[in-house]
Amino acid sequence: MPSPLRLGIAGLGTVGAGVIKIIQRQSALITARTGREVTISAVSARSRDRDRGVRLNDYAWEDDPVTLAKRDDVDVFVELMGGSDGPAKDAVEAAIAAGKDVVTANKALLAIHGQAIAEAAESKGVSVRFEAAVAGGIPCIKALTEGLAGNEITRVMGVMNGTCNYILTRMQSAGLDYQTVFAECEELGYLEADPTLDVGGIDAGHKLAILVAIAFGTQVNFDALNIEGIERITTEDIEQAADMGYRVKLLGVAQKTGRGLDARMTPCLVPDKSPLGQLEGGTNMVVIEGDSVGQIVLRGAGAGEGPTASAVMGDICDLARGLSLPVFGVPATTLQSIEAAGVGAPAPWYLRMTLVDKPGALAKIAAVLGDEGISIDRMRQYGHTSTHAPVLIVTHKAARPALDQAIVAMHGTGVLASEPVAIRIEEV
Amino acid sequence: MPSPLRLGIAGLGTVGAGVIKIIQRQSALITARTGREVTISAVSARSRDRDRGVRLNDYAWEDDPVTLAKRDDVDVFVELMGGSDGPAKDAVEAAIAAGKDVVTANKALLAIHGQAIAEAAESKGVSVRFEAAVAGGIPCIKALTEGLAGNEITRVMGVMNGTCNYILTRMQSAGLDYQTVFAECEELGYLEADPTLDVGGIDAGHKLAILVAIAFGTQVNFDALNIEGIERITTEDIEQAADMGYRVKLLGVAQKTGRGLDARMTPCLVPDKSPLGQLEGGTNMVVIEGDSVGQIVLRGAGAGEGPTASAVMGDICDLARGLSLPVFGVPATTLQSIEAAGVGAPAPWYLRMTLVDKPGALAKIAAVLGDEGISIDRMRQYGHTSTHAPVLIVTHKAARPALDQAIVAMHGTGVLASEPVAIRIEEV
Repeated sequence: MPSPLRLGIAGLGTVGAGVIKIIQRQSALITARTGREVTISAVSARSRDRDRGVRLNDYAWEDDPVTLAKRDDVDVFVELMGGSDGPAKDAVEAAIAAGKDVVTANKALLAIHGQAIAEAAESKGVSVRFEAAVAGGIPCIKALTEGLAGNEITRVMGVMNGTCNYILTRMQSAGLDYQTVFAECEELGYLEADPTLDVGGIDAGHKLAILVAIAFGTQVNFDALNIEGIERITTEDIEQAADMGYRVKLLGVAQKTGRGLDARMTPCLVPDKSPLGQLEGGTNMVVIEGDSVGQIVLRGAGAGEGPTASAVMGDICDLARGLSLPVFGVPATTLQSIEAAGVGAPAPWYLRMTLVDKPGALAKIAAVLGDEGISIDRMRQYGHTSTHAPVLIVTHKAARPALDQAIVAMHGTGVLASEPVAIRIEEV
Repeated sequence: MPSPLRLGIAGLGTVGAGVIKIIQRQSALITARTGREVTISAVSARSRDRDRGVRLNDYAWEDDPVTLAKRDDVDVFVELMGGSDGPAKDAVEAAIAAGKDVVTANKALLAIHGQAIAEAAESKGVSVRFEAAVAGGIPCIKALTEGLAGNEITRVMGVMNGTCNYILTRMQSAGLDYQTVFAECEELGYLEADPTLDVGGIDAGHKLAILVAIAFGTQVNFDALNIEGIERITTEDIEQAADMGYRVKLLGVAQKTGRGLDARMTPCLVPDKSPLGQLEGGTNMVVIEGDSVGQIVLRGAGAGEGPTASAVMGDICDLARGLSLPVFGVPATTLQSIEAAGVGAPAPWYLRMTLVDKPGALAKIAAVLGDEGISIDRMRQYGHTSTHAPVLIVTHKAARPALDQAIVAMHGTGVLASEPVAIRIEEV
């Protein structure tokens, strides 16, 4: 049997402890599957004394993750600290420079510094693997880079922040408003220390930026993404959308166009009968579309100790088996630089607004849409008070700029009693 | 750049032509991803003259697939002929003996001869890969053997015959009976030449037998599976199940128990809101449950030119990249032999029967179930004619032998007017 694969693990939070538990519990299985033993040489974390529910006595301790990364008895540096800069970045760079393979769950690091890391790793001939960085336990990186390697990928989509999906699902099922469910999540510890990472779409955006790179062979470019959070979604919109057969999701969608990259992580409406529409609670989903395979849907837990540790272990087992791929599926120096397309593909839109209740108000709104070449698929007036009339419109496909111009023109009609809400309807 | 990976392709039906189309259309992409060119040296099929919509002039022709498999200019033998014995088996064996790697889409071959093929391949140090043999375009073999390699797999499930799922879905949506939809499928060319392979559950059973081996590290043992087709499913059962919130699926379920392997491909009821319950038409779904990852659901096209060719290409790209794994994920000589558990895990059951309409009839049936220790979750009498009363019962969890004894005892009560229909309700 070949010599053991020796790990150095930096970061002993939930995921780090989870990885150690798997290695301790399933060592025989892992050896049977990979043909070699996987061992832990050393670990590192901020506090040495915390009880993590896992035995660490057999492993050397390093206070400094950079020192850990360079140890002679470490073949693979496992980075589970998080953060796009600081110690995580320093330690990953040190590991690569020392010729170690790297496994990381750090989406922010890769979304911001992925290109530099990939170039450094490939010039040193080491691997950097990151299945756990995107959609937790779902093996979507492997599916894209390996299983579907014969496909030209035409679109990737994903619900990849469990907290946002939990909030939207709970708003719908319990009829609670955003602030109330947000407060519940804070109490339950579901939110990141900086909650805008979750609800502002940043965390999910980091994941989408990574998916884009491996799907389309482009340099990771987080700045090319159009990102919008769920903070402005109201119970009203969730209920009206449901009435029309839609669910509201924080959905990542990316496709390459002749004008550049059309990639966004924004609230969207999707049909309630679609796999994405059916996705409830904290579960994640990644949808991959390829020219040969058609549509593949992958669903599973996007976070948590077990699922994330499972993804880290998948990468470790690949390294133990000697599998080696370019970091983003093709050599980093061949990844194309890509700019944002600016204008996304046309789509149907959900529009909600309140009109002053006087004769001809609705006709004026319809005329304004017509002037911009936007035709109406469905229109509905509902609720109605003595002075105001809430109105819902579903348009046929329209480009966002035309819609924005129509909204400006609506303000000029004098019949608007509220700022119109526009949510894209994604065809999934 | 390393030398090209040279293929010999035997079988030029839909899938074979699809693979050649991808190689011709996406050669630049494949080279970028794998770091080498993938070329075709020679092809083989039964008829040389048929127009397959693909240019073959650049490839050598072999009438005999065995000769093709042994050619010096072939590195990988791609077997797309099908059939568990005959030319497919001969050619795969010849390829292995000649030291060639093999890619195949042949589920029957692997389900019947998988162990011998794996042992032969591993003793020669060659790979045999078969992503396309299970669930078409869904990269489920890769997910199980690689992405989830750190997990002890606790259960696998799958809807893996698109024709059966199409029939059951259409019976429900159109209210048509089995015979009518079966005839439609024959006309549309949806059925295998021997349709019992589809509707009898054999084809899906072959796929399950392969999944079992890689999920549980056991020798492929098709005979240990409990297989039942969809031929006896009635519109009545589909409608009654739907009324109670269930869908009827031809579902494969496998888990290892202390008594052996509990693996079956049988019609089951699943909740209509579950991913399996939502699966309509010809789409396939594989559900994998692991001790760390929880539940992963994979969904996609299970057949057809593009999806199946995509899976074949995934395997070819892996070989081009130098990835090498034991055939069933662990060395073939370490695969455990396993027998059928005999008795499946207890489950709730759907029971439908018609009773003679006289006082106390229902009480007698309830008493018989009680005598066997089977408690009733829901009971409903519906329809009703002057002499007969149709009855539906959903039981709490019960073992199949107890249920079978109860059904025997029901016959003894003299109140049965029809043979009871029993369908397992799977907790998914």
